[in-house]
Amino acid sequence: MEINGVTIEDTYAEAFNVWAARIIITAATKDWAFWAATEATGFASSTIRCPCEAGIEAYLPPNTTPDHRPGYSILICSKKSAIKEQVLSRISDCIMPVPTTAVFNGHVEMENPDAEYLTLPVKLHYFGDKFEKKVKVGDIDCWSIPLMGGNFVIEEEVSAIRAIAGGNFFVLGNSQMAALTAASVAAEAIKDVYGAITPFPGGVVSSGSKVGSKFYKFMTASTNEKYCPTIREAVIEKGLKTNVPNGVKAVFEIVINGVNETAVKNAMRAGIQTACTIPGVVMISAGNYGGNLGPYKFYLRDCI
Amino acid sequence: MEINGVTIEDTYAEAFNVWAARIIITAATKDWAFWAATEATGFASSTIRCPCEAGIEAYLPPNTTPDHRPGYSILICSKKSAIKEQVLSRISDCIMPVPTTAVFNGHVEMENPDAEYLTLPVKLHYFGDKFEKKVKVGDIDCWSIPLMGGNFVIEEEVSAIRAIAGGNFFVLGNSQMAALTAASVAAEAIKDVYGAITPFPGGVVSSGSKVGSKFYKFMTASTNEKYCPTIREAVIEKGLKTNVPNGVKAVFEIVINGVNETAVKNAMRAGIQTACTIPGVVMISAGNYGGNLGPYKFYLRDCI
Amino acid sequence: MEINGVTIEDTYAEAFNVWAARIIITAATKDWAFWAATEATGFASSTIRCPCEAGIEAYLPPNTTPDHRPGYSILICSKKSAIKEQVLSRISDCIMPVPTTAVFNGHVEMENPDAEYLTLPVKLHYFGDKFEKKVKVGDIDCWSIPLMGGNFVIEEEVSAIRAIAGGNFFVLGNSQMAALTAASVAAEAIKDVYGAITPFPGGVVSSGSKVGSKFYKFMTASTNEKYCPTIREAVIEKGLKTNVPNGVKAVFEIVINGVNETAVKNAMRAGIQTACTIPGVVMISAGNYGGNLGPYKFYLRDCI
Amino acid sequence: MEINGVTIEDTYAEAFNVWAARIIITAATKDWAFWAATEATGFASSTIRCPCEAGIEAYLPPNTTPDHRPGYSILICSKKSAIKEQVLSRISDCIMPVPTTAVFNGHVEMENPDAEYLTLPVKLHYFGDKFEKKVKVGDIDCWSIPLMGGNFVIEEEVSAIRAIAGGNFFVLGNSQMAALTAASVAAEAIKDVYGAITPFPGGVVSSGSKVGSKFYKFMTASTNEKYCPTIREAVIEKGLKTNVPNGVKAVFEIVINGVNETAVKNAMRAGIQTACTIPGVVMISAGNYGGNLGPYKFYLRDCI
Repeated sequence: MEINGVTIEDTYAEAFNVWAARIIITAATKDWAFWAATEATGFASSTIRCPCEAGIEAYLPPNTTPDHRPGYSILICSKKSAIKEQVLSRISDCIMPVPTTAVFNGHVEMENPDAEYLTLPVKLHYFGDKFEKKVKVGDIDCWSIPLMGGNFVIEEEVSAIRAIAGGNFFVLGNSQMAALTAASVAAEAIKDVYGAITPFPGGVVSSGSKVGSKFYKFMTASTNEKYCPTIREAVIEKGLKTNVPNGVKAVFEIVINGVNETAVKNAMRAGIQTACTIPGVVMISAGNYGGNLGPYKFYLRDCI
Repeated sequence: MEINGVTIEDTYAEAFNVWAARIIITAATKDWAFWAATEATGFASSTIRCPCEAGIEAYLPPNTTPDHRPGYSILICSKKSAIKEQVLSRISDCIMPVPTTAVFNGHVEMENPDAEYLTLPVKLHYFGDKFEKKVKVGDIDCWSIPLMGGNFVIEEEVSAIRAIAGGNFFVLGNSQMAALTAASVAAEAIKDVYGAITPFPGGVVSSGSKVGSKFYKFMTASTNEKYCPTIREAVIEKGLKTNVPNGVKAVFEIVINGVNETAVKNAMRAGIQTACTIPGVVMISAGNYGGNLGPYKFYLRDCI
Repeated sequence: MEINGVTIEDTYAEAFNVWAARIIITAATKDWAFWAATEATGFASSTIRCPCEAGIEAYLPPNTTPDHRPGYSILICSKKSAIKEQVLSRISDCIMPVPTTAVFNGHVEMENPDAEYLTLPVKLHYFGDKFEKKVKVGDIDCWSIPLMGGNFVIEEEVSAIRAIAGGNFFVLGNSQMAALTAASVAAEAIKDVYGAITPFPGGVVSSGSKVGSKFYKFMTASTNEKYCPTIREAVIEKGLKTNVPNGVKAVFEIVINGVNETAVKNAMRAGIQTACTIPGVVMISAGNYGGNLGPYKFYLRDCI
Repeated sequence: MEINGVTIEDTYAEAFNVWAARIIITAATKDWAFWAATEATGFASSTIRCPCEAGIEAYLPPNTTPDHRPGYSILICSKKSAIKEQVLSRISDCIMPVPTTAVFNGHVEMENPDAEYLTLPVKLHYFGDKFEKKVKVGDIDCWSIPLMGGNFVIEEEVSAIRAIAGGNFFVLGNSQMAALTAASVAAEAIKDVYGAITPFPGGVVSSGSKVGSKFYKFMTASTNEKYCPTIREAVIEKGLKTNVPNGVKAVFEIVINGVNETAVKNAMRAGIQTACTIPGVVMISAGNYGGNLGPYKFYLRDCI
């Protein structure tokens, strides 16, 4: 199978469940909302060493938000035991301090009415030390907490659903810059897909890993030498397997979390189609673990 | 004391010690270095609920970096017990995955040769699973770790020194937008001061707090009602003290961490001078705890 | 009439006809398309001294463009006698030189099937010196012109229609920064309205003018002293009229060009609603010349 | 000669004289100054069809500008007969309308005390209709012109010197994206060189041309087929000469204007060095016309 002469390998991305909360951040200006969203989704690329995975889902023009100011929706993803703590900490330390912000529940459960969901109480109004007040924003019950910079308005309950992590595809190029540019435009295209995020910085991953390590037994993860072009010959010499086609100089991965299967599939489609417009891309592949990792299989052939 | 008709209150910012590591991130392009720096300094505004405080210190043009590529230096600040873990986690999950990045020690100890310092080993080369190699970048000993996207080069020891956290000043305005714009241009000006960062998103804090809570005894911190303009009357009615001058509509705080006293002072100077160019700013003040918080007193009068 | 306590004056914006061409610019990446669009719409704020008025209409995600790459649509507006020259010059010197760009007709006549329109031939294929070739992009007939950086693809006929220039509204604030922030978020909101542009830099005008000059007879335009807050007293003292309400510190204007009346009205609505979310805005007004300037009257009351 | 394995061809860039004015634009915020600078330097890539060549020279931090606000310096370059008109039009229509801006003479003659220079009177104060006033900004005599959005401050005389246009180098890559990324980081690096600009959008040119046309006699310029990789075989088949080495897929040009020879040379050095850090770049060359175009020869070997 091909797009613009690029081989689409007949394989699939394997994905698994995660809990995802959607938070809507508004502010007086788009910039302040963006900076809050950026800080609140930082240090959140991978749960290998980050406490959660998070990303900006969408810019929300003023006429689409509860208080008619510009905003962003973000997704915060983690295992169930950590989700409340991550949502609370990131609102209290990364959003509330940002001038003019307000926080609303993104009601992520609406994306998937049959999904299991949680309501996370975020009891920030106590920060007001009894100067806080209940207010309505449209029909929404909120707290207004007086701060030095003005009043911070928050809808105190945020919902989370069982969502999907680990959607992915690989971009293989005959030069490193071709593969990188292609992965980059793919990540950019995915920004327009509602319900999906790419949690890594700039949306692209250079360091795809394998579980464990062949030679350092104390490591729980190590480089995925099968897909490393710069050591292709060394891998073969050691009698190991390589999946790097001859002539490929770099392989970048796009990792996608989404609120449901449709969102992940739409993101993979948008990303793959756009990656294939860049000259020098030779193949699209995907990462899976033979079905041992999770219940979701996103076949590339179904995404295009 | 006045600048452009703005009253500079005769008070001081009180600051305390913290450990700070400087990491230099380079990449093929400025954008990729920036995204790595942004992710690595995210969720790091305040150690109330974040695991560290971090920020981008400076853009480094190609002719100033070890590998002659564009880069950024970042500062990661925390207490001594957490610094190694934060440096390691943020390099491994927020920088290494970013396409084409390399990491170098920023040798923060050079800023202050007499300061106490630590060397933090960041043993990421094991990720290479014995495919990693020692390489030289100029005179610097590094590891080159093969990844799917190319080789990741890292100088594995990062140094940290006893630095300063909590430098600050307040911007008081006769309209919320005047105070906000002034605080914003102050934060922007501080970006040009080497050795200093503003760890909060966009560099401005809306939610300055006091220790404990008057009315909710279970809270360890709550709003600093003395500086909250929107409840000025309510505060007075409750028989509490307000520091909000009549007519002031908003108070924003700039928080500064720096590698030494000179850096903090330079940052305060640049920020205050620039804030005072905005019409509607009426006073500059600063936050202190009567000398109980830390050993550093930055008098505003010495900063201008 | 009021929005969020802001007075909406019972007046109208007066607008007139202009010719508008829509050009679609795509490129390998969003950034290159943006830089081409920015250069091609530069020096184009007002036809007082610029050769045309132009602006970016919309970002076009890859799945919406003819070649499935990211793009921008721009509008170039001028009188009929200048439109072909401006379209040709800006494509040949501001878009064709930009790496990887392609140009397509935006078929602006579709927005208004009954409108008068022109087809502008842009004979750039001769630049190929007989190395150019006819190609199809989807169903579209294009030329592919070989350049040093690759092939430049262009649909050579661009259409223009009789459109509308001079839609506008004024934002009056009780502080300069409040009025400016409000005007700024209004301009940002208008970016999401298809069919409309704000031709001035950043979308906001500080220097609204009157026709002619009271005291310098050789001037064809001069400051609109009736709306200048900093000389309010001087204007009154000279026995002239002021429209500046007491306490207003700044008046900023948003100027809007649109492909039809609906687009202008939608832009005015989005801008006014968003401006009224900023504290310190006290009034929204609009500029007109008593009906002498042009055939269109956009009443503020109809825009909200 | 080689840098990082990239061949530096033993050739030179040929450049010629032009008049250059430097204008300093300040504003309340960096963003507003940037938008003014961007509009004022738009439609100014090449004097083939643009009325001048212009670009942003440098960001100026607040502590370096006359009014201690953030700013940008821009260079406007044209032949002598057009320079005053271009400076006037771009100030009056692209800078004065932008909220909170001020304009100062960049005293470009200081860069080269022995150079011939002009003083350009920009009589904008008449716009004030006798409400304008003389003011001092530090030691500088300025006019303050009341506008709707506040007062516009301007130093009315701008100086221009005989400067240099047409500095250049070519980046040849074994993939289009490698060459493009390299040219792009080169242009970014040149932003840090004071005294130089890259007038084309994003700093990179895809459409280098030759004088005249081989097959369309009415064309004054056409594609430079000698450097067009996509028609390399066709060029050879027609018995014409190609300068494209085998395996090269794209050639991008960086064009540089500078206030003197040192600035052009520094910009070429910064650009070439940075371009050579990108994998896939195979050669750096330069454009010249055998010495017929202008008096300046910048040998690549002297720039590195």
